[in-house]
Amino acid sequence: MPSYNAPLRDMRFVMDEVFDFAAGYQTHGLTDATPDLVDAVLEESAKFASEVLAPLNRTGDEEGCHFDNGVVTTPKGFKEAYQQYVDNGWAAMSGPVEFGGQGLPASLGLVVNEMTAAANYAWNMYPGLTHGCASAIRAHGSQEQKELYLNKLVPGHWTGTMCLTEPHCGTDLGLIKTRAVPQADGSYSVTGTKIFISSGEHDMAENIVHLVLAKLPDAPAGTKGISLFIVPKFLPDANGEKGERNGVVCGSIEHKMGIKASATCVMNFDGATGFLIGEVNKGLNCMFTMMNGARLGTGMQGLCHGEVSYQNAVAYAKDRLQMRSLSGPAEPEKPADPIIVHPDVRRMLLTMKAFNEGNRALAYYTAQLLDSAHYSQDEAVRANAEDQLAFLTPICKAFMTETGLEVTLLGMQVFGGHGYIREWGQEQQVRDCRIAPIYEGTNGIQALDLLGRKVLMSQGKLLRAFSKEVHLFCQANEGHAQFGEYFNKLTALNAQWGELTQKVAVKSMQNKEEVGAAAMDFLMFSGYVIHAFFWLKMAVVAQQKLEAGSSDAAFYQGKLATQEFYFKRLLPRAQAHVEALEAGADALMRMTADQF
Amino acid sequence: MPSYNAPLRDMRFVMDEVFDFAAGYQTHGLTDATPDLVDAVLEESAKFASEVLAPLNRTGDEEGCHFDNGVVTTPKGFKEAYQQYVDNGWAAMSGPVEFGGQGLPASLGLVVNEMTAAANYAWNMYPGLTHGCASAIRAHGSQEQKELYLNKLVPGHWTGTMCLTEPHCGTDLGLIKTRAVPQADGSYSVTGTKIFISSGEHDMAENIVHLVLAKLPDAPAGTKGISLFIVPKFLPDANGEKGERNGVVCGSIEHKMGIKASATCVMNFDGATGFLIGEVNKGLNCMFTMMNGARLGTGMQGLCHGEVSYQNAVAYAKDRLQMRSLSGPAEPEKPADPIIVHPDVRRMLLTMKAFNEGNRALAYYTAQLLDSAHYSQDEAVRANAEDQLAFLTPICKAFMTETGLEVTLLGMQVFGGHGYIREWGQEQQVRDCRIAPIYEGTNGIQALDLLGRKVLMSQGKLLRAFSKEVHLFCQANEGHAQFGEYFNKLTALNAQWGELTQKVAVKSMQNKEEVGAAAMDFLMFSGYVIHAFFWLKMAVVAQQKLEAGSSDAAFYQGKLATQEFYFKRLLPRAQAHVEALEAGADALMRMTADQF
Repeated sequence: MPSYNAPLRDMRFVMDEVFDFAAGYQTHGLTDATPDLVDAVLEESAKFASEVLAPLNRTGDEEGCHFDNGVVTTPKGFKEAYQQYVDNGWAAMSGPVEFGGQGLPASLGLVVNEMTAAANYAWNMYPGLTHGCASAIRAHGSQEQKELYLNKLVPGHWTGTMCLTEPHCGTDLGLIKTRAVPQADGSYSVTGTKIFISSGEHDMAENIVHLVLAKLPDAPAGTKGISLFIVPKFLPDANGEKGERNGVVCGSIEHKMGIKASATCVMNFDGATGFLIGEVNKGLNCMFTMMNGARLGTGMQGLCHGEVSYQNAVAYAKDRLQMRSLSGPAEPEKPADPIIVHPDVRRMLLTMKAFNEGNRALAYYTAQLLDSAHYSQDEAVRANAEDQLAFLTPICKAFMTETGLEVTLLGMQVFGGHGYIREWGQEQQVRDCRIAPIYEGTNGIQALDLLGRKVLMSQGKLLRAFSKEVHLFCQANEGHAQFGEYFNKLTALNAQWGELTQKVAVKSMQNKEEVGAAAMDFLMFSGYVIHAFFWLKMAVVAQQKLEAGSSDAAFYQGKLATQEFYFKRLLPRAQAHVEALEAGADALMRMTADQF
Repeated sequence: MPSYNAPLRDMRFVMDEVFDFAAGYQTHGLTDATPDLVDAVLEESAKFASEVLAPLNRTGDEEGCHFDNGVVTTPKGFKEAYQQYVDNGWAAMSGPVEFGGQGLPASLGLVVNEMTAAANYAWNMYPGLTHGCASAIRAHGSQEQKELYLNKLVPGHWTGTMCLTEPHCGTDLGLIKTRAVPQADGSYSVTGTKIFISSGEHDMAENIVHLVLAKLPDAPAGTKGISLFIVPKFLPDANGEKGERNGVVCGSIEHKMGIKASATCVMNFDGATGFLIGEVNKGLNCMFTMMNGARLGTGMQGLCHGEVSYQNAVAYAKDRLQMRSLSGPAEPEKPADPIIVHPDVRRMLLTMKAFNEGNRALAYYTAQLLDSAHYSQDEAVRANAEDQLAFLTPICKAFMTETGLEVTLLGMQVFGGHGYIREWGQEQQVRDCRIAPIYEGTNGIQALDLLGRKVLMSQGKLLRAFSKEVHLFCQANEGHAQFGEYFNKLTALNAQWGELTQKVAVKSMQNKEEVGAAAMDFLMFSGYVIHAFFWLKMAVVAQQKLEAGSSDAAFYQGKLATQEFYFKRLLPRAQAHVEALEAGADALMRMTADQF
């Protein structure tokens, strides 16, 4: 039976020692988030994750969701765990105080979410999407809508969805066919079919609030004619409580590779009553509020599955006895040595550790930006944080899920044949993780978003802002006694980042396909550089602690060893992406469709 | 519903145009394999694969095998398909004539196996393992054993297994606990538990012949004390027919990530009657005969799943309409363009095509070596073929499965959200393929076998032999008008291959861990070089055909485009492996176990 223990030591290392979350809370006036409270939140959510959610992960996968005539039943224990989550205030933790939230920092919310999601990703989808739905209503809803829905969504009494995809369109939302016809009372009659709706129907909460993209009868064609509607499963009554049943039903649930305990629904809207949110024909903008959060959350999925896979792979590698170390028996009293002595097993474990911890550093850095964007009193700070978030979001989503998937595949491999057997749990991490590079915009779409919209459309501004941080860090550490060669490497990569961007920009003026042809390799290159940046940041801190005579030396030495491994054995991949990228579009475009 | 159509045009390109199988058949006196007969075999087996086996692939996955009190029931239709396979002589095709086989070339057997395995890998496991079992008996059994068992195994009336793994040992067979006690009549009483036994029990054939590794009571410790036994489910009676039930029963079947229709059994031997095969304590050598075949077969699994995934991904990419080409609408009369116009979709499809076809070339090259090793009249030719097989087997097993898995993961990605839904079939290819890098010796073990046993222990001889072929090919094409830059690249890589080997050899004299630390990157580098070699071979042929005015120009232009793509966008990865390899063992070994 696989297990999950929240890696609090690693998490605190990043929160407290690398980034100093506490200082940020002070700056932003988040005075409720005292060190004691943060400690208590971490300890308690770690317990909830490992004791309540983790034990339901394998059983949830085996049992899956059941569908019967419009009714969806979640696996045994899911509903009770959700009730506990709501009752103990976890749902409301980082929600706004005026709607029943506790107003704790977004960054702390992300950290807690890492634990609940790692323990049981499928379960976590239900509250996860609710946060996205609530934030869209908060950003774009009327005061009345906020009061009506946020008071229910923020504490988790009701859950939320986002209904975008239709059978014939996912990426290309301009093609949607769902129609919203204005009614005399100011509401809309919504009709159409949405697919792949996570948590579209379930038995965990008393009501479900759907955010639905639809077109008015006279809407312009394409994405400029899309509006966003609130379509609750039960219409709120005069007291804001669950009232009359609305015309939206679940038609079926999907049979999936993984996250089987998360209900993925076909939702049929048949003259359902909907309420416009935001302006007519500006629905896509509203939806993006929700999607950016969801993209960060999906990036976290790569870390979450990677972490669980790593924990169990390390335990297995220390326990499984097989062959002798080539350097001579490590444990001569046993029939064989634990496989963690073998260099190739270490290669796999170190790859997992390096990607996971690099991803955590990236995620927590981004979490601090969320705090700045939400809470800073300084407009310039807020604007800069928004810019950095815009730049980092597609990288978090795509790089964290690409590497997360690689980590889970390695975590199976460490187990040998047992990795393929369901009871051991490693293969579920792969199946559950495999959706992350696909949904919330495929990683190919993230790459286009990064290179096309974020980097090139800003004339390189967003890249330069981040790149400057890297530059200042390198400059401050030039000729570093311990890490000199690594700082030189990072300095060179950082310069190359800008040069590559220039080259693509020039080429794309002659051939528009160059951006699409370069995008994925550009994103992966960016990810490797960013991990290098964060690994050096972590190494510098670890080195300082060791020099100060820390009593936790093994922990910091592990960080230094992993930083060396990352630079020597993973970072070389960055140049393969450069070469592929520089090959340009011709090698992709010369094939005619019938030659495939 | 996914489909599979045997890619006969591609297969014939490699068989006829790149390697000239027919000439080999003439040289080896395989006169039965006339061009007409080969044609008929290809056409008929393609039909059997796509019409009989492929339709059972999804249903077999959904239904899985059922276990009830020692009895295993395969999915609906499996038994009937197997009967057809036996009745139509497919089982016996490349088996020895003296035992009911048709004596057709091993290479043709491999090609036919590509089709049946691609159509339904789980089903193909049942006959697949039988071939391995039969070849071990043929190589090491007594005349009596051959007559008794091969007459049943070769035509497929009985099936075979290989029983190596036990709960506490897979890679480290020296630890096995199964015991074989000599009996007065010359037989042995075999007792122990074997796990992960593919086709250990099923309902498709009337008897099952287990080859079992066990230790005599007085056997030396470790791998030098292992003997091999034939343990049939039913003991043959005086007429060689199925007789008395033997003391071996299936205790349970595993719940797996994929190949669910293949029964993976726990087999309990309880004083079962076994017959020694080969010499006492030489069991591991006998088993290697079987394993080498199985390793090639497992390498093919990477190609098979990759091919199916590619076929369906191309069909989807031509059919699915989403967004417009950045170069302007490709199909303006439709609501959007097919996604095959987008460069990033092409990047994925071309990666799939390049790896699949490179893998097919490698596999068919190896198949020709099988013919030479089996049938050549010339001892030197046979010895050289054996050497090359020894060298290429771990590369086929590991590189073809690593890349095959990558291909199936991309094949899911092309489908977007639909890739995650079981009905579409793409995710099954990933799940089924995922076992291939693990079983028959993990890819890490293959890498050690390649670098340690094959390359370094032969003092580089086996590598030099292959490398010389590459060298001669490059030399003959130096300054090639069309492919000059690619030949330069291959020449450089070929030289680097030898230099890397030297470096590791020198380092390993000081630190034994260097071989293990370098092995996986060395194997991957080797695979990329070998693919580059075969892609240039294919490109040269395609270019010649185009210059000769072939009417099949689109086909050959596709080959040229894919060769360019491979060199420009995939081959750069080789240098990342070089850098990682050259980083050496220290970055892996400095972590203490508790720092993980």
